[in-house]
Amino acid sequence: MPLKIAIQGIKGSNHHQVAKEYYGHDIDLVECLSFHDLVDRLLEGKADKGIMAIENSIAGSIIPNYALIDDNGLHIIGEHYLNINHNLMGLKGQSITDIFEVRSHPMALLQCREYLKTQPHIKMVEDVDTAETAKRIQEKNLKGIAAIAPKGAAELYGLEIIVPEIQTIKNNATRFIVVKTKNKELPKKEINKASVRFVTDHKRGSLATVLNVMSDCNLNLTKIQSLPIIETPWKYAFFVDVTFDEFEHFAKAKSLLNIMLEDFKVLGEYKNARL
Amino acid sequence: MPLKIAIQGIKGSNHHQVAKEYYGHDIDLVECLSFHDLVDRLLEGKADKGIMAIENSIAGSIIPNYALIDDNGLHIIGEHYLNINHNLMGLKGQSITDIFEVRSHPMALLQCREYLKTQPHIKMVEDVDTAETAKRIQEKNLKGIAAIAPKGAAELYGLEIIVPEIQTIKNNATRFIVVKTKNKELPKKEINKASVRFVTDHKRGSLATVLNVMSDCNLNLTKIQSLPIIETPWKYAFFVDVTFDEFEHFAKAKSLLNIMLEDFKVLGEYKNARL
Repeated sequence: MPLKIAIQGIKGSNHHQVAKEYYGHDIDLVECLSFHDLVDRLLEGKADKGIMAIENSIAGSIIPNYALIDDNGLHIIGEHYLNINHNLMGLKGQSITDIFEVRSHPMALLQCREYLKTQPHIKMVEDVDTAETAKRIQEKNLKGIAAIAPKGAAELYGLEIIVPEIQTIKNNATRFIVVKTKNKELPKKEINKASVRFVTDHKRGSLATVLNVMSDCNLNLTKIQSLPIIETPWKYAFFVDVTFDEFEHFAKAKSLLNIMLEDFKVLGEYKNARL
Repeated sequence: MPLKIAIQGIKGSNHHQVAKEYYGHDIDLVECLSFHDLVDRLLEGKADKGIMAIENSIAGSIIPNYALIDDNGLHIIGEHYLNINHNLMGLKGQSITDIFEVRSHPMALLQCREYLKTQPHIKMVEDVDTAETAKRIQEKNLKGIAAIAPKGAAELYGLEIIVPEIQTIKNNATRFIVVKTKNKELPKKEINKASVRFVTDHKRGSLATVLNVMSDCNLNLTKIQSLPIIETPWKYAFFVDVTFDEFEHFAKAKSLLNIMLEDFKVLGEYKNARL
């Protein structure tokens, strides 16, 4: 039986592309309306694994997804990077002069702003999704309206790419993570990256102390993000990703940080996708 | 002549509320369609100051806004916190059973999810803004449709609040900053907070070293955020906010960090709004 992989969005979306690249084509795709729904499908057992965008080289972390993982006890079991390309697409046979309106997700419009400035006759309209807009153009036969969406959406919904790769920054990598309700035990020698969460108080230097321990244990920090804790002013939660050569180095850091910190949690131990 | 204050969104939005609380009612409001437009208005001299949401206790930093400030040489001259309340509102005389659809910004829908779960007859539709949806309900006399928006929007657009404060987490503070194209020189004794940006390489412990210097200079870290630098893999930009009792402490840290770091920039020196 094929794996049931939950994604945010519909077929033709970037999440769908990641599912294919990570698990191959023989999967049973579970389309979800939101990241919240994706977590619900996992908790109900209607999906085996979920794929979630977690950070973008332009926009930074998608913080609510960290909270979803943390609050629902999910485990990060892998990661994948996808270079996002935004393509202007519409019904077949149309050229750029036929287009009077472009619809896409606000982030996609923002990332294509420089190109769209060169086409002042095109009105920008914010919409909720990229692939869904493409689907709607086909279903409702919307002439003069273009979507900004991944290449796969054009193929799937029979649209024509009018202008490819219109994003301003060409190297727009987005990091996706694979999550699961139960931890998948990887062999220790395959693990070289981990995501952790901890809480420190406002005391001067408390974060520096934690980072000194990590550095002493030969961990490389690849990402850090603070988030105020809503219920307790002056306390901060930190989400940190580290890479390491030896699992033993991370194991040593874990045992030290467990003693030092009041609230230290490993969100996932997995294989670094960027070696 | 009243100050020209640019905000993202329209009258009745949370940005409008911040403008009133920070500058009083005697202002000339410049409504902008996006944060990008807000920056353009400042650069063109069509607005004196701009108000931008920068971080949310639920969703974290609005990273693209940091890039907008950094890339366009803007200065942060102040900050303001607003507790965001989401209210369900519709045309007058309607009750909750009359409502079949609620429209709002995805973040607002997410923050009200627990309440909306108790009303399964109401369909959730993502929309681009909170106050704008309220305005549209009035203009088009949309029966059965509710907006989730600030209280001010109900007053301004003649809607009735059907259920007040439906957000799950009641203490939902959002931090806004005031930006300007020219630096406003505050007296040093009034400055007790600063936002800085710097770049470190991937070398183990390089961030810990910077934080040790800040700690040695008696600075308190209130926020940290890493962002990979797109053009140069393995280099990271860090956005850090610090508070201090004496400006001299910060001045000392500045001179040390200017020597230590290849790319150290002060984005703003201002008065801490949370004393």
